[in-house]
Amino acid sequence: MKYVYFFGAGRTEGTREQKNLLGGKGANLAEMSRLGLPVPPGFTITTEACESFYTAGKTWPEGLEAEVRGKLAELEQATGKRFGDPENPLLVSVRSGAAASMPGMMDTVLNLGINETTLEALARRSGNPRFAWDSYRRFMQMFGDVVMGVPHHDFELALQSVKDARGVRQDTDLDVDDLKKVVALYSELYHRHVGGGFPTDPWIQLKHSIDAVFGSWNNPRAIRYRQLNDIKGLNGTAVNIQAMVFGNMGDESGTGVCFTRDPANGDNVFYGEYLMNAQGEDVVAGIRTPHPISTLGEQNPAIYRQLLDIRSKLEAHYKDMQDIEFTIEDGKLFMLQTRAGKRTIFAALNAAVDMVDEGLIDRDTALMRIPAGSFNQLFAPVLDRKSKEKARLITKGLNASPGGASGRAVFTAEDAEAWAGRGESVILCRLETSPEDIGGMAVAKGILTARGGMTSHAAVVARGMGAPCVAGASSLHVDAGSRTITCGDVVIREGDLLAIDGFSGEVFLGAVDVNPSEIVQVLRGMMSESESRLYRNYKRLVGWADEVRRLGVRTNADTPRDAEMAVLFGAEGIGLCRTEHMFFEGDRIVPFREMILVADEVKRLREQAEADPGNEEIRRKLEAPLATYTHALSVLLPLQRSDFEGIFSVLDGKPCNIRLLDPPLHEFLPQDREGQLEMAKVMGVSVERIAEVVETLHEFNPMLGHRGIRIGLTYPEISDMQVRAIMEAAIDCTDRGIKVLPEIMIPLVGHPAELRISRERAQAVVDAVLVERGKPADYIDYRIGTMIEVPRAAVDAGKVAAHADFFSFGTNDLTQMGCGFSRDDAGKFLGDYVRMGIYDKDPFASIDEEGVGELVRLAVERGRGARPGIKLGVCGEHGGDPSSIRFFHNVGLDYVSCSPYRVPVARLAAAQSVLEKAK
Amino acid sequence: MKYVYFFGAGRTEGTREQKNLLGGKGANLAEMSRLGLPVPPGFTITTEACESFYTAGKTWPEGLEAEVRGKLAELEQATGKRFGDPENPLLVSVRSGAAASMPGMMDTVLNLGINETTLEALARRSGNPRFAWDSYRRFMQMFGDVVMGVPHHDFELALQSVKDARGVRQDTDLDVDDLKKVVALYSELYHRHVGGGFPTDPWIQLKHSIDAVFGSWNNPRAIRYRQLNDIKGLNGTAVNIQAMVFGNMGDESGTGVCFTRDPANGDNVFYGEYLMNAQGEDVVAGIRTPHPISTLGEQNPAIYRQLLDIRSKLEAHYKDMQDIEFTIEDGKLFMLQTRAGKRTIFAALNAAVDMVDEGLIDRDTALMRIPAGSFNQLFAPVLDRKSKEKARLITKGLNASPGGASGRAVFTAEDAEAWAGRGESVILCRLETSPEDIGGMAVAKGILTARGGMTSHAAVVARGMGAPCVAGASSLHVDAGSRTITCGDVVIREGDLLAIDGFSGEVFLGAVDVNPSEIVQVLRGMMSESESRLYRNYKRLVGWADEVRRLGVRTNADTPRDAEMAVLFGAEGIGLCRTEHMFFEGDRIVPFREMILVADEVKRLREQAEADPGNEEIRRKLEAPLATYTHALSVLLPLQRSDFEGIFSVLDGKPCNIRLLDPPLHEFLPQDREGQLEMAKVMGVSVERIAEVVETLHEFNPMLGHRGIRIGLTYPEISDMQVRAIMEAAIDCTDRGIKVLPEIMIPLVGHPAELRISRERAQAVVDAVLVERGKPADYIDYRIGTMIEVPRAAVDAGKVAAHADFFSFGTNDLTQMGCGFSRDDAGKFLGDYVRMGIYDKDPFASIDEEGVGELVRLAVERGRGARPGIKLGVCGEHGGDPSSIRFFHNVGLDYVSCSPYRVPVARLAAAQSVLEKAK
Repeated sequence: MKYVYFFGAGRTEGTREQKNLLGGKGANLAEMSRLGLPVPPGFTITTEACESFYTAGKTWPEGLEAEVRGKLAELEQATGKRFGDPENPLLVSVRSGAAASMPGMMDTVLNLGINETTLEALARRSGNPRFAWDSYRRFMQMFGDVVMGVPHHDFELALQSVKDARGVRQDTDLDVDDLKKVVALYSELYHRHVGGGFPTDPWIQLKHSIDAVFGSWNNPRAIRYRQLNDIKGLNGTAVNIQAMVFGNMGDESGTGVCFTRDPANGDNVFYGEYLMNAQGEDVVAGIRTPHPISTLGEQNPAIYRQLLDIRSKLEAHYKDMQDIEFTIEDGKLFMLQTRAGKRTIFAALNAAVDMVDEGLIDRDTALMRIPAGSFNQLFAPVLDRKSKEKARLITKGLNASPGGASGRAVFTAEDAEAWAGRGESVILCRLETSPEDIGGMAVAKGILTARGGMTSHAAVVARGMGAPCVAGASSLHVDAGSRTITCGDVVIREGDLLAIDGFSGEVFLGAVDVNPSEIVQVLRGMMSESESRLYRNYKRLVGWADEVRRLGVRTNADTPRDAEMAVLFGAEGIGLCRTEHMFFEGDRIVPFREMILVADEVKRLREQAEADPGNEEIRRKLEAPLATYTHALSVLLPLQRSDFEGIFSVLDGKPCNIRLLDPPLHEFLPQDREGQLEMAKVMGVSVERIAEVVETLHEFNPMLGHRGIRIGLTYPEISDMQVRAIMEAAIDCTDRGIKVLPEIMIPLVGHPAELRISRERAQAVVDAVLVERGKPADYIDYRIGTMIEVPRAAVDAGKVAAHADFFSFGTNDLTQMGCGFSRDDAGKFLGDYVRMGIYDKDPFASIDEEGVGELVRLAVERGRGARPGIKLGVCGEHGGDPSSIRFFHNVGLDYVSCSPYRVPVARLAAAQSVLEKAK
Repeated sequence: MKYVYFFGAGRTEGTREQKNLLGGKGANLAEMSRLGLPVPPGFTITTEACESFYTAGKTWPEGLEAEVRGKLAELEQATGKRFGDPENPLLVSVRSGAAASMPGMMDTVLNLGINETTLEALARRSGNPRFAWDSYRRFMQMFGDVVMGVPHHDFELALQSVKDARGVRQDTDLDVDDLKKVVALYSELYHRHVGGGFPTDPWIQLKHSIDAVFGSWNNPRAIRYRQLNDIKGLNGTAVNIQAMVFGNMGDESGTGVCFTRDPANGDNVFYGEYLMNAQGEDVVAGIRTPHPISTLGEQNPAIYRQLLDIRSKLEAHYKDMQDIEFTIEDGKLFMLQTRAGKRTIFAALNAAVDMVDEGLIDRDTALMRIPAGSFNQLFAPVLDRKSKEKARLITKGLNASPGGASGRAVFTAEDAEAWAGRGESVILCRLETSPEDIGGMAVAKGILTARGGMTSHAAVVARGMGAPCVAGASSLHVDAGSRTITCGDVVIREGDLLAIDGFSGEVFLGAVDVNPSEIVQVLRGMMSESESRLYRNYKRLVGWADEVRRLGVRTNADTPRDAEMAVLFGAEGIGLCRTEHMFFEGDRIVPFREMILVADEVKRLREQAEADPGNEEIRRKLEAPLATYTHALSVLLPLQRSDFEGIFSVLDGKPCNIRLLDPPLHEFLPQDREGQLEMAKVMGVSVERIAEVVETLHEFNPMLGHRGIRIGLTYPEISDMQVRAIMEAAIDCTDRGIKVLPEIMIPLVGHPAELRISRERAQAVVDAVLVERGKPADYIDYRIGTMIEVPRAAVDAGKVAAHADFFSFGTNDLTQMGCGFSRDDAGKFLGDYVRMGIYDKDPFASIDEEGVGELVRLAVERGRGARPGIKLGVCGEHGGDPSSIRFFHNVGLDYVSCSPYRVPVARLAAAQSVLEKAK
């Protein structure tokens, strides 16, 4: 096994393709060397060596030391310097570099190889003793901190004490004697923390540093980073050892970091900053203010021209925006890194479309270039940049859900609803959110929590709702009791103005203007297409996606307003229209509750009457409740009909999948005494009667209870009313020239016989309505089908398909039942499970392909086997998740359905699925 | 399509094999005719005709009338009589007869074809006008009641009024004039209820009667009967029209009902009763007391010899005990029916073994002859017959769970526990039971409910526990508030002595002696084998079953006592030892609760300490709870160890599958304020703290919550303790020369990685214990495996098998998750579902083969595919259900496991599965 790869000096061994082996940094150093760019030579220890280091119990694997020593000798030869040489010493940098970028890991040790002997040589050869001593103290600090764990802060204090004694502010104001004092203090510090003297043997320095890089791979911060960023399947980190070039050798030296395009908006301009007489860390540290890269053209036109040339070469070669690091040593340019540049979604979109126009990439590459998961960030409202600068930044949390929001601080879901009810914009501030907060979250402009990560309840729900969210802002002390937030000396009270930026995680005190997304402004006709380059690029890109994709994209929408927005976003129909929401609206809950109160009595008495047809007493008893029951349904019918008419009108010609009543009846009744008292008053029945019905309807496991088709079979008149409303609305719309394609979806089917019976009953209602209205049987092009969300239905899909024109996979419930954990309760262990690597990701966010996905696969295979033309879609939340969409594409579904704001995400992800599969 | 089949008079068309077409009665009439037995000729209208009748909207199908008229003509020819003939009229009986016996359906119309003209001829030809008029009034009564729906009671009143006027008691005391008065009253009655005159046209009489038989197939009583008795897949009922023979023609005539053996105990004696000068209904009606059949030998030796001869012929032909009906007309014997005789389980067992010895049937037939589902009735205690006769029978309910019980009436589960705690035998009397009553049900000798059917909670739980139960005794008014039962004029108070007979459904007031089952007496050494023929036959039969069966049979047992009983019943090991019950015993709950109170804190602080290793404050905070946690587990360890030692000692050499902790932790804490206060006092912690933990542990869907392996992964020290206890007990036992085969079962696995992690951890504990005790690695022959009860695990079984030495299917939970209904909640609709025919049977009682069974099938296929030697068993309650056992046999499991008292059931059912498959 080969553990070490050389690069530079015309003897490069690796290539850019070997990212997994050499890490991103190592592979690109090799690639730049091959391109003939000025890269200081060096060598990369592979990720496999790191893996072997761990399997060997944190010791170097057999042969690694010999290889490192061998490559070091090659490096000495290539540079003409020698490690530890008192005359012409070789100094190196040691940098970690995994296959995926991991800024949370140990980064860099510079100037390694320096000690009091070699620094004299360095001083002599550079004619710059200050530079040599500065390099030494930098090395001591980095090595001490990063490799040996001496607190960084202690080094800073020691340095500051010398600056204070000299009365200077900048490090660069310290002279050689000052630096010698710093070195003495650092030595003492090192001795105190580590014991023994500071290691002078360059090989020992190198060995410790390599160990430290290996060790950093599994430090808690790195592990956490990989979890948060969903980085899996890597062996370890590579280690890059490279001959030092010095940006801190004087005013002809310097260092900089650039992007080949603007990473904020994608503009094709050279973008970045640099500092003269500095090493890389100084640019980042913020002690001195770096200059914009464009000013380098005046200061050093030759180097600038050389950089522009390299920028072009790299973009032409990598065909992507690059993020590069360079150092100028005594007027000579060296390249230290290149990698794909991190960019905002705006930049990603603009750059991808520009590059197609520039002929750099083709359509398919452009489509693959956009991270589909972030695509909906394009539609989030944004904090006005200027207004933001005027506000007070109080803290930063996790950018949990993109978008900007501004409003009054409220501390409970009830307060949020109350303030919002008065027309106020609110930011809901919670320690953390829970399912009871949903109502408040839905009305809030933004959500701010002090606890919880990117997958916390607040984050997940906010992303689902498309609401901006800053989560885990841990410096905020949220006290819902006193309705205050304290953050240092700032106290925020209910009603105070706050703003959050879900793109950056920033939290501001005071009013900040919020602008709608540019694309949404154009879609809504508030801005013209010609005014917005972003919109034009968006339109071209999703147009390309539509050319490529095979999967249809529908939306989950319950209202004409949502449906309208979804259509603007390109939805090709509704994949899930939940009808239960309609019963909660306004006063409709009253007749619905009237019905619930008598439903069971009606059912019981009817059964008795059937068993004993002659019994007049039973018949008499049945009369009153039956009248209430029938009347309540007759009140609801025209309301539902008009709901459907509204939605059908928006869709005009696009299919509309309507799910019959799904939740258990107890969800429609108040569970608490107070609510029951109020309901009793409104409805004129005794509170005891209400409490009794609530008690009767109570369930131990509501998730596995009396809901969905089970209600349809127990109280079939409810479904009858809904089917009637759908058909009457469809006929009315068709009469008015609106094309309607209704799909009646029967939920929670587990057994084919459930669907057979329900379907027959629905069919009878459909037929009756058509006859009543004097329409031919084919007047409406309707379908009747079912959700597949119960594991039993998935494995028995062949038989279920006999009664279904379509299946729509309800992967939320299929996950709950298939994996056997309820979403409401799984929080207690699912976080641990993801941390332990049992599930790669939260299976409610991305479909668990091997488990729940296998149930889908079986159902597809068996359903299509029995009924080849059956239409297959998915309406769970997974329908808007790119990696799940890839799965649904591969498994052969016809369409996915997702929330309106995720429709463009799904269009793009569907196209990417085709392209990925083709690879 | 041929709708009518003739029998008798040497021209029989049907055979015994055509039961589905001709019904049981029709097929056997044909068969007896073929055997040359004296069967009055007649014809059978097929069940297909009945089916067509329904599909044609309750009208006769095309061609039926012509066929019936044709066969009627044949019958006239065969008998030399003519329907409606004024000289020599043909009278017929009309009887329903489906493929399965359905005593709840309309039964019989006798003497059809009679009217005031034909009765004169009948009187003339028989020389017995009284007989003719009696036949007429009988026909009017039967036709009026059964065919036209005139209340039976009204006929009785009319008859009674004539008897009263004449001052006689017996119907036979009425003379011709009296009977004419009766006929006149009946005519009036008919006119009042039906309108018009009583039909005199024999064809009209026949047509109405056939319609009524067809119609009776779907009357509520018949539907209910089929549901209760699980009769499915039949087309309808056949109709048998047969020439009348008259048992009421005088003292040389008569009628009787016999069994070819004693249906109570199977003794090979001719058993039954008869009445002279009577029609069949009189024997059953109980107005006159019939005579034992043996006395017929004195009264009419020729007929008796003929009957004995027929008895032998029928047994030799049918090779089974027969239930026969005969009529003697004027000294001549006619056979009207033969069918397999209903018998008790005792009779079934004895007769089957006897018949093998008699050479009548072979071993396999004997095995098939015993209804496996009733086999465990053999082990139920029985009310002493003599003692029972002395007690007062107060009512009869459903025989919901077999066995006799006597004890004091109690009305709540708490009272049951309190009385039982004082050493009293109690009968728990409830309106209906619910899961909260389990504790009381467990200590009660028997359970009596006023509501609920054969599948009610009380019935199901009692059968599971092997406790006698009479359910749905609807004439009892149970008032738990006042602790009384009223039943007519009887009032039963708490503490009064009651007895119930779960074999018959009888309820007695007063003390009744209870004897243990004979077989159990022998098994327990209380009676010698030679004293019990029943035991010897049982032993031979299960011995035959063991020769035939392939499936192993284990038991579900948590205590040495249960294990011991199961071994006596032939269990080959334990298939499920639940460990959680052990934590509830005595004072053990205290340390377990101590552990729960700190578990979450320990976990949280440990995670913080890991993420921030230098933080001394966290370490300090962790100390106290960690000490409590560790101490509690160390207290529990020796207790669990001794539990396992007890069980291992009983099993000596038989495998023992032990399931690690399964239920959610909240089940171990009191949910009510009172319990929490008590717990606070016992444990010396604040009640607020307890309430807080209870609140934290609350789950919305506990079925889908934090339990099983999820607890093992979150709080691994609990599993560690259990694994350690198992291994230490195994080593101690092995040291003492006891052979131990422990199987460690990890519950609720959904994902292979869960099992991998838990298994590795368990393996480490196993290894550590072996090393500590200085034992070699193979000292204990242990296995580690998992339950398959989560649908995900079933479909991903190939990967799960990689970490499992065995699978045990937990089909209870697999049904809940697979079908998506919780057992606790499904009661609200599952009854409807079975009624609607969606599920054939309660899927918790018999496995749903096409759904849940398909998940099992997939898991078997995939698990064995990945690991051919994997051991496969089932430990859900289905393991004791014969039809489920047949499925498990066919799907290829290695063993089933069930409750101790069902072990013989499983042995028998496993053998029957082999024999059925061979067919």
